[in-house]
Amino acid sequence: MKYYGEVMSNLITELSRLPGIGLKSAQRLAFYIINMPEKNVGKLASAITEAKIKIKKCSVCNNISDSDPCVICSNTKRDIHTIMVVETPQDMASYERIKEFNGLYHVLNGVISPMAGIGPNEIDLQNLFTRLSSQNVSEVILATNPTVEGEATAMYIARMLKNFNIKTTRIAKGIPVGGDLEYVDEITLTQALNGRIEI
Amino acid sequence: MKYYGEVMSNLITELSRLPGIGLKSAQRLAFYIINMPEKNVGKLASAITEAKIKIKKCSVCNNISDSDPCVICSNTKRDIHTIMVVETPQDMASYERIKEFNGLYHVLNGVISPMAGIGPNEIDLQNLFTRLSSQNVSEVILATNPTVEGEATAMYIARMLKNFNIKTTRIAKGIPVGGDLEYVDEITLTQALNGRIEI
Repeated sequence: MKYYGEVMSNLITELSRLPGIGLKSAQRLAFYIINMPEKNVGKLASAITEAKIKIKKCSVCNNISDSDPCVICSNTKRDIHTIMVVETPQDMASYERIKEFNGLYHVLNGVISPMAGIGPNEIDLQNLFTRLSSQNVSEVILATNPTVEGEATAMYIARMLKNFNIKTTRIAKGIPVGGDLEYVDEITLTQALNGRIEI
Repeated sequence: MKYYGEVMSNLITELSRLPGIGLKSAQRLAFYIINMPEKNVGKLASAITEAKIKIKKCSVCNNISDSDPCVICSNTKRDIHTIMVVETPQDMASYERIKEFNGLYHVLNGVISPMAGIGPNEIDLQNLFTRLSSQNVSEVILATNPTVEGEATAMYIARMLKNFNIKTTRIAKGIPVGGDLEYVDEITLTQALNGRIEI
C-alpha cells in the first residue's frame, strides 16, 4: 500500500488488525475516515482511547463498566434477590434488550472447558459464591449457553449451590420460536419433549 | 446499550457510523478493542487522527498523500511521459498492485455524470490539462471504468486531448481472464469481438 503514502498505509494496517476486517474492508474504512469531517474523526479516535482507559470490570457482577459498581448493580429499582448467571457481557445484553428480567447478573467471562484448560478456578465463580453468602439471594438462574461447556458449567454451579440452599433454575431449552420441527436437530427435539409443560 | 455504561455505548455508536458496520459488528469490534493491549489501542486511535490531519491531495496528480507531491509523482524512476487517468485512488492502487505500469497517474476523483449533476468542471480535469501543457507527455491512457459514466468521461477527455496532439489510448474491454463466454453479458461479448487483435 506504499502508493497511498505511509500515513494511509499505517491506518489501513491498523484497521485490518480488527476482527472480521480484511485488507479490502480496511481500505474502504480508511477512505471513509479520511473523508469524514475532522470533528467526527476526533470523536471516533477519542471514543476508542477513552473506552480502553475507562472500562473496567464491575467488582460486583463482573460486567464491563466505566463505573463501579456497574449501571445494573447500582440500579436500586432492580430485584437484588435474583441473579442470572451468564457467560459474557454480550449474553447479559441479549437479556437486557428484551426487558423481561429485572434482577441482577453475574458475568462469568468464560465457561468451564477442560479441553481448553479452563477449570472452575479460571472463571469468575468465587465472586459469585461470595455474593450469595452476603446478599439475600432467593434464586439463581443459570443462563449459560446450551453447549457442552455451557451445560457443564451450569451443572457445576448447580452442584455448588446445593450448599447455599438457594433455588437454582436453568433457562429452558427447546424449539426456538418461529423454528420448524423438520429442521431442528435431534438433541433439541429431545430436550423440547423432555421439557414439555402442561398447558 | 445502556447496560454497558456510557463509555462503551459511545464507542459502539461511533464504530457503527462506519460503512458496512452494523450494531452487531460494532459491538464485536468494541469488545475486541477494550481487550486489546493498551499500546495497540493507542496506535489505532492515533493512526485514525493522524490520517485525517496529514492526508491531503497531491497537487500534481490528485492522489491522496501525506507528502506533496505524492510518493508516485516524486519517484524519479517512473516514466513521466505516460499518464494513466483513473477515477479514484483505489483504481490507481489496483494498477499499482500488478506492477506492470511505470508511468504517472492522474486521479479524477469522480466521473462525468449528468444524472448526478457532475459535469466536466466538477472533476479534476483542468489540473490534467495544465500538466499536459507543462510536462512532456507522449501518451495518456484512459483507465476510467467501463461504465456509462466512465465511458462518457473517457470520450470527453479524448476529445479534449485532440488539441494537445498527444497519443490517447483506452484500456481494453473484453472477456475477463478466467471468465466463461457462456456467462458473459452481450455488450462485453460485442466489445471483445470488436477489440480483437491479430495473433
